[in-house]
Amino acid sequence: MSDSLVIANQTFRSRLIVGTGKYHDRGVMRDALEASGAEIVTVSIRRVEIGAPGHQGLLEEVMGKYHLLPNTAGAKTAEEAVRIARLGRALTGENWVKLEVIPDPLYLLPDPIETYHAAKILLQEGFIVLPYIGPDPVLATKLGAIGCATVMPLAAPIGSGWGVKTRALIEVFLRLRDQLPPIVIDAGLGLPSHAAEVMELGADAVLVNTAIAEAKDPVAMAAAFRMAVEAGRKAYLAGPMTARETASPSSPVVGVPLVQPEAPV
Amino acid sequence: MSDSLVIANQTFRSRLIVGTGKYHDRGVMRDALEASGAEIVTVSIRRVEIGAPGHQGLLEEVMGKYHLLPNTAGAKTAEEAVRIARLGRALTGENWVKLEVIPDPLYLLPDPIETYHAAKILLQEGFIVLPYIGPDPVLATKLGAIGCATVMPLAAPIGSGWGVKTRALIEVFLRLRDQLPPIVIDAGLGLPSHAAEVMELGADAVLVNTAIAEAKDPVAMAAAFRMAVEAGRKAYLAGPMTARETASPSSPVVGVPLVQPEAPV
Amino acid sequence: MSDSLVIANQTFRSRLIVGTGKYHDRGVMRDALEASGAEIVTVSIRRVEIGAPGHQGLLEEVMGKYHLLPNTAGAKTAEEAVRIARLGRALTGENWVKLEVIPDPLYLLPDPIETYHAAKILLQEGFIVLPYIGPDPVLATKLGAIGCATVMPLAAPIGSGWGVKTRALIEVFLRLRDQLPPIVIDAGLGLPSHAAEVMELGADAVLVNTAIAEAKDPVAMAAAFRMAVEAGRKAYLAGPMTARETASPSSPVVGVPLVQPEAPV
Amino acid sequence: MSDSLVIANQTFRSRLIVGTGKYHDRGVMRDALEASGAEIVTVSIRRVEIGAPGHQGLLEEVMGKYHLLPNTAGAKTAEEAVRIARLGRALTGENWVKLEVIPDPLYLLPDPIETYHAAKILLQEGFIVLPYIGPDPVLATKLGAIGCATVMPLAAPIGSGWGVKTRALIEVFLRLRDQLPPIVIDAGLGLPSHAAEVMELGADAVLVNTAIAEAKDPVAMAAAFRMAVEAGRKAYLAGPMTARETASPSSPVVGVPLVQPEAPV
Repeated sequence: MSDSLVIANQTFRSRLIVGTGKYHDRGVMRDALEASGAEIVTVSIRRVEIGAPGHQGLLEEVMGKYHLLPNTAGAKTAEEAVRIARLGRALTGENWVKLEVIPDPLYLLPDPIETYHAAKILLQEGFIVLPYIGPDPVLATKLGAIGCATVMPLAAPIGSGWGVKTRALIEVFLRLRDQLPPIVIDAGLGLPSHAAEVMELGADAVLVNTAIAEAKDPVAMAAAFRMAVEAGRKAYLAGPMTARETASPSSPVVGVPLVQPEAPV
Repeated sequence: MSDSLVIANQTFRSRLIVGTGKYHDRGVMRDALEASGAEIVTVSIRRVEIGAPGHQGLLEEVMGKYHLLPNTAGAKTAEEAVRIARLGRALTGENWVKLEVIPDPLYLLPDPIETYHAAKILLQEGFIVLPYIGPDPVLATKLGAIGCATVMPLAAPIGSGWGVKTRALIEVFLRLRDQLPPIVIDAGLGLPSHAAEVMELGADAVLVNTAIAEAKDPVAMAAAFRMAVEAGRKAYLAGPMTARETASPSSPVVGVPLVQPEAPV
Repeated sequence: MSDSLVIANQTFRSRLIVGTGKYHDRGVMRDALEASGAEIVTVSIRRVEIGAPGHQGLLEEVMGKYHLLPNTAGAKTAEEAVRIARLGRALTGENWVKLEVIPDPLYLLPDPIETYHAAKILLQEGFIVLPYIGPDPVLATKLGAIGCATVMPLAAPIGSGWGVKTRALIEVFLRLRDQLPPIVIDAGLGLPSHAAEVMELGADAVLVNTAIAEAKDPVAMAAAFRMAVEAGRKAYLAGPMTARETASPSSPVVGVPLVQPEAPV
Repeated sequence: MSDSLVIANQTFRSRLIVGTGKYHDRGVMRDALEASGAEIVTVSIRRVEIGAPGHQGLLEEVMGKYHLLPNTAGAKTAEEAVRIARLGRALTGENWVKLEVIPDPLYLLPDPIETYHAAKILLQEGFIVLPYIGPDPVLATKLGAIGCATVMPLAAPIGSGWGVKTRALIEVFLRLRDQLPPIVIDAGLGLPSHAAEVMELGADAVLVNTAIAEAKDPVAMAAAFRMAVEAGRKAYLAGPMTARETASPSSPVVGVPLVQPEAPV
């Protein structure tokens, strides 16, 4: 049985990638990561670098147990992103990088120009690049064409929990999947049903952080996302029913009145 | 650990109720019911009575293994529904009945007047009544007030697979839950994410038939719905994050420009 | 040129019906009614009866200038609705009545059982009955069959401004239009685009009150709704384009890559 | 009375910009442009250049009567767009250009990298640049910062008629409006209600082509869009009501049961 996620020639069973930010407690984070079933875990190298709350010793915590995905959160330009990526590689020995170039302090939306520029540089330096992008299938195709290992379009702004607000464009990604590397839906998923929805559409994986870390019970929520991602993937493979124009009666009824009219009073 | 569904003083672990219609193969149905984890299974007494395809020996198949929920599908009036309910009790010894009064051959929408009337009669005759209704919180409250064991509002027309098309009104049901018996979302759910969505909102259970029976692989789809219902329930109990107006930055940013403007060219 | 709305054999040019509640100022109400272009105006007989704020002299204000549509707001039962309807007829000489039977103090949702019962009584007493109902096509068909002059399903709870939250079921109403009297979308429309949307779908008219009365500038908002209703109707008659699966290129492109891949870096 | 649209220091009364493609008949196009009330009309210079059907003599038809907005449709790269823009200026004497760089033959989605590059070149050459873009607020801010006269995000793919499928991101544009030039919603609007919706949100203008040209009656549809755009703008200025969590009752009702329970039967 081999429904595996393959990124840059590495094979994963889990299609849920999780983050390590926003946890109030290291033990809770540890248990939530475990409950999520994730194999890939992303860490902010910038926050590790500056010793942000919850980030001391974080690399050591995660390395070895998970496939580490250093990210460039905090970078506002291609230059900063490249610097952080290199630092991440130096700290971890890992050449994968989740590329985030985010000049927008309010909605944390990525910069397509700087992201593309940084991706080119990082690819030339031998990184495995997983870029975070807007719901832009053309940018995704360009990033795939130069060799990015995935594309990671947002469902909604990071941390918003709004859900799948870019569905029409995500559907375009999925129709173009033979021109694209694995499609990982990143950012904005607030509930397990959001994750299931994009998996049912055919996304290859999802990345979730805030919705787990900020749940009242992060460990239970991590387990819920794990099940929802598996449910969505299983449904995609199981071949869903076709939605109908009308309801589904057991015999032909065209032209039949909806109800037998009573005589007018 | 006791997050149980209680209907008419009976306790269930599973919050997924499944149907037995539209299967092309008895063995597939048997495996799908098993994979769904359902404890309550509904059967059309009218189709059993007339020996409709797939319904010969169906009662014997289901009784004993599952809590049987005879339904009155095929009834267009209260009178017909009451007749079918009595027949179901005679055939099965079971006094639970899923009350469906459906005069509409196109969209299979229920008749609120006849449903209410039939519910009164059946309650007087000692039935445990689980009525299928439109997204009508007032009707639901009235049905609860006279003693119905659940209310079962539709998400969309039966068999349509459209998903949660009545969400605003289902949310009203859930805000009124202390005035209502258990709320089971019935009809129209086409994908596991639809089931997860209503469970996250706080529904007590869902009923799914067509989306499983008409999947290309019904057994896998049943398993997917099982996981999605559990994920949705778990998320509800885990206390989801609060969706935000803006994205979630790590420091206050009010008044900061979105990007640093370059000089105009 | 005769795209007229016909209700109970009376012909109207305007497809926007407006209410008279919630205005803070009689002069503003007068100007808003004028700006709306409405020919039919509904008034709460119960509020007139008890002299509620803004309702003294309201009948005199409206009668003569508009086709008066007394409503039974405040009725929680069929009995109360019938009493108020009779009072309305006595006060106004008008035998039209907008039938509202609303036991729900929070969401102002109508009671289908009591509404149907009251409609039967009022029709027998010679009233022209326009019932306010939930998004229930079966109830609508029954009310049409006994002789109601319109059906008035809600888009969302009264005064909520949520918009068209019952669209899937309103579409069912419209597909069944040859079995129904004129379909007037009532309640919950908060913006002109909401009104345009249901008119484009083929609704015969809309009723708007709160969205006009509670706008910062009710007179301008009334004019905006007038234009939007006309725009929606005109679009319905003009025959909208067909939405496409893909975008609309000028030449066939199947199998063409989305972008010409650059060489990997 | 001065609610004007100002683009590049020119003032317009109409907030509806229309296209000239896809008409089957020049006379119908002429009447539809007239009925739309538009002051700005966009023309494909590439189609004029190659003498595409319906484009012979089109410039002469439009110039003088309307503010001409040459567009670069057909350009797949920045280089091609710049060439077409220069040709447009040579043919028309007009230095405005609607910048479209579209490598995607299926969904006609724009290329953010090439668009940004072309905008820089065209601005340096003295063009007034109105770029067509994806729903990308960061790209928009960058284009505004270098001097573009508007930003024109898509509601959905060109010609799709899907409606406002990028609403969450369009709302971000509008919250950032003080950092942006006028926001013109371009592409994908299929119905007047779609146009009204974005105008109510605060968009400065909309651009519509296919939805008018492919209507069964383009002239009537043009008039419908005109009214809808005016209605949406008027509603925006009139200050809409606030949508409510519950419906709007006339007196406080917290804790009151939804309906008075009857005695259980």
